[in-house]
Amino acid sequence: MTTQRFLTGITTSGTPHLGNYVGSIRPAVRASLTDSVQSFYFLADYHALIKIDDPARIQRSTLEIAASWLAAGLDPERVVFYRQSDVPEIPELTWFLTCVLGKGVLNRAHAYKASVDKNTAAGTDPDTDVSAGLFMYPVLMGADILMFNAHKVPVGRDQVQHIEMARDMAHSFNHRYGEHFVPPDAAIEDNVATLPGLDGRKMSKSYDNTIPMFAPREQLKKLIASIKTDSKAPGEAKDVDGSALFQIYQAFASASETEALRQAYADGIAWADAKHIVFERVDQELAPMRATYQALMDNPAKVEAILIAGAAKARAIATPFMRQLRHAVGLRKLDAQNTSSTHKPVKTAKPSFKQYRETDGKFYFKLMAADSRLLLQSQGFDTPREAGKVIGQISTVNPAGLKDLSVYWQAATGVEEDDILAAVQQLQSD
Amino acid sequence: MTTQRFLTGITTSGTPHLGNYVGSIRPAVRASLTDSVQSFYFLADYHALIKIDDPARIQRSTLEIAASWLAAGLDPERVVFYRQSDVPEIPELTWFLTCVLGKGVLNRAHAYKASVDKNTAAGTDPDTDVSAGLFMYPVLMGADILMFNAHKVPVGRDQVQHIEMARDMAHSFNHRYGEHFVPPDAAIEDNVATLPGLDGRKMSKSYDNTIPMFAPREQLKKLIASIKTDSKAPGEAKDVDGSALFQIYQAFASASETEALRQAYADGIAWADAKHIVFERVDQELAPMRATYQALMDNPAKVEAILIAGAAKARAIATPFMRQLRHAVGLRKLDAQNTSSTHKPVKTAKPSFKQYRETDGKFYFKLMAADSRLLLQSQGFDTPREAGKVIGQISTVNPAGLKDLSVYWQAATGVEEDDILAAVQQLQSD
Repeated sequence: MTTQRFLTGITTSGTPHLGNYVGSIRPAVRASLTDSVQSFYFLADYHALIKIDDPARIQRSTLEIAASWLAAGLDPERVVFYRQSDVPEIPELTWFLTCVLGKGVLNRAHAYKASVDKNTAAGTDPDTDVSAGLFMYPVLMGADILMFNAHKVPVGRDQVQHIEMARDMAHSFNHRYGEHFVPPDAAIEDNVATLPGLDGRKMSKSYDNTIPMFAPREQLKKLIASIKTDSKAPGEAKDVDGSALFQIYQAFASASETEALRQAYADGIAWADAKHIVFERVDQELAPMRATYQALMDNPAKVEAILIAGAAKARAIATPFMRQLRHAVGLRKLDAQNTSSTHKPVKTAKPSFKQYRETDGKFYFKLMAADSRLLLQSQGFDTPREAGKVIGQISTVNPAGLKDLSVYWQAATGVEEDDILAAVQQLQSD
Repeated sequence: MTTQRFLTGITTSGTPHLGNYVGSIRPAVRASLTDSVQSFYFLADYHALIKIDDPARIQRSTLEIAASWLAAGLDPERVVFYRQSDVPEIPELTWFLTCVLGKGVLNRAHAYKASVDKNTAAGTDPDTDVSAGLFMYPVLMGADILMFNAHKVPVGRDQVQHIEMARDMAHSFNHRYGEHFVPPDAAIEDNVATLPGLDGRKMSKSYDNTIPMFAPREQLKKLIASIKTDSKAPGEAKDVDGSALFQIYQAFASASETEALRQAYADGIAWADAKHIVFERVDQELAPMRATYQALMDNPAKVEAILIAGAAKARAIATPFMRQLRHAVGLRKLDAQNTSSTHKPVKTAKPSFKQYRETDGKFYFKLMAADSRLLLQSQGFDTPREAGKVIGQISTVNPAGLKDLSVYWQAATGVEEDDILAAVQQLQSD
């Protein structure tokens, strides 16, 4: 019944290139249009600090990536699109998770182990040039995911271990403090389209072989013209296998267009002509987005405003959830229940409704159990009166009628109908 | 010229006992009365999460420790007395410091190494039962200190290494991002009064030999009566060396009182009589505080309000400082200076004044350098007009006159008079 939450982070360390577009941005934007999912996309600028100590680059990259995703069609009204560092709950949750995670789990992280292996091979101290940030990276990623109780995290196979660590943190925390977190699942993307770069290797910043996603038309033309080919002359049949040019075309063209270029290769098209075809096809898809991108790059205040609005949506979830987590671990107001010495009589707590308005302008309510656990979350109502009417019905309904009212809400993760029924009966009991 | 800032944290994991009072609370409260220092005391509840997974205990301990310090005379108006978890900037700074610190430094932390040695000796994995929290503890402590640019951190000799690590973090951060942090110094407390416990060993929660600081009078009497002594009969001369009872008395009594008890020991006082004298002397000092303590324990909302007010004072420093640090590392508004791609002309930045009101109701200004570095911080003025008048004078003063105006401000740490003069000249230059 609960909407599946997907969460994707993009580290703000570079300029998006065609490989990012084909492998990540385009499919993610398409996925965000699915009705049955709630998508979270965030600019992982705290993560960027691990590797990048050039502040201007982080700021520029944040703008470029945000503008790229927006230009590629990400609808910030439809998804939650935010900048990690606008959610102060995330570093706080990182600390909570640090306290419940065994250090040994981090020792086994692939990225960390790769650094250790490299140092060991070089005969230096295993942790030479390893920052605590690299080591702690999986915990920050765990906080990113668990902050929003994301069910699914689309990742490449190399990132699966990080999701397993986030599950580990969720289990450890739940074990100590009660059920607060949904252990997330990796949505493994085995057939992510990878694009070859200018030199035929995988397009990657680290190979310096990229084509920027929003290179101006003339630059795009030059870059595509510079893609490495073999030296077959015009008229000679050409091989599509291993042709970077062909693979790039394939990532943009329809099946029939691809077939036509395959035939042209067989017929001995000149490389210059093939490159022209590829360039025009890529440009055809990118040109409209490029105009939007440029307009956003020229108006960083607009992108900033979009991210700030996204952060408000993210924090509408993170802030109350963090309040719940702080209570769970014992960071409580001193006059909150449970404070006083044990010899005082403890009042029996009751379930309670909380009404509030979200940034979408709608009116919501939640039902919290006696132990402050979230039981259910209502849909958005246009007026507080409508929300109040449903609360009134819940407060007087009989067990049979409760099911009919359940169309108005979503049960919190891990909460069964019986839990809600029990709370409602407790509510009605005086 | 800058007021020295002292910072002390108390982990909220237990109930204060007489050893804490004599070794830490009493001297700290006395030190806080010194005029030349600015003292920060905080309840380290994020630290408590490393070891304590009992939420009620953390909450209760927070109340007990806060009430104990207040009862012992800590004046929250005079010092900054806050709860760590009320300052969300601290976990954020923890992440920043994590990213600049080499992991190897943490491998060498004494507390962590002690766990590893124990595991190694037991033949298990070195990191068995070591949480990431234990490993990362020094970074959180670094954030505690650097958040307020504390100059001095009173610590026992076993904690000196943590201060060195905080220095290391300060240097690494400053090296990458410019001078933002004051490398702190340990104020080593070599002659901390330690108190023996009921069994004669050092009074410590872990030995279960403590006398709670605010045990009710009858309980205090019983506990002191239970202090281990030798079996010398009344009339036999007794040895003050190694007498826990005598040492406890010494920690409370004047020199002449101590001398009198020493004589009584030599004269063969009965243990029961000696215990009665010690009990009355200890109770004499504690009784007035005990009443205050009990009143605070019965009114947790009052303690909560004091801590909330303290957090506001702490955040009046932490929030703007964090803004500066976020800018320094590149977590900036997208439309802030330096955003645009490098090909755009960069405007020459100028130093600038910032005026603001603090929670004490007074009006302040700061002078920021062209690179946004804090240069100076004014005293508090009663009206914005008075603050504005001094700004006006600075804006027109000649170099010789600048010195006279300097009574109105404190230079930021690491800022020389020449830096301020240069900025003022740059300000006046058009």
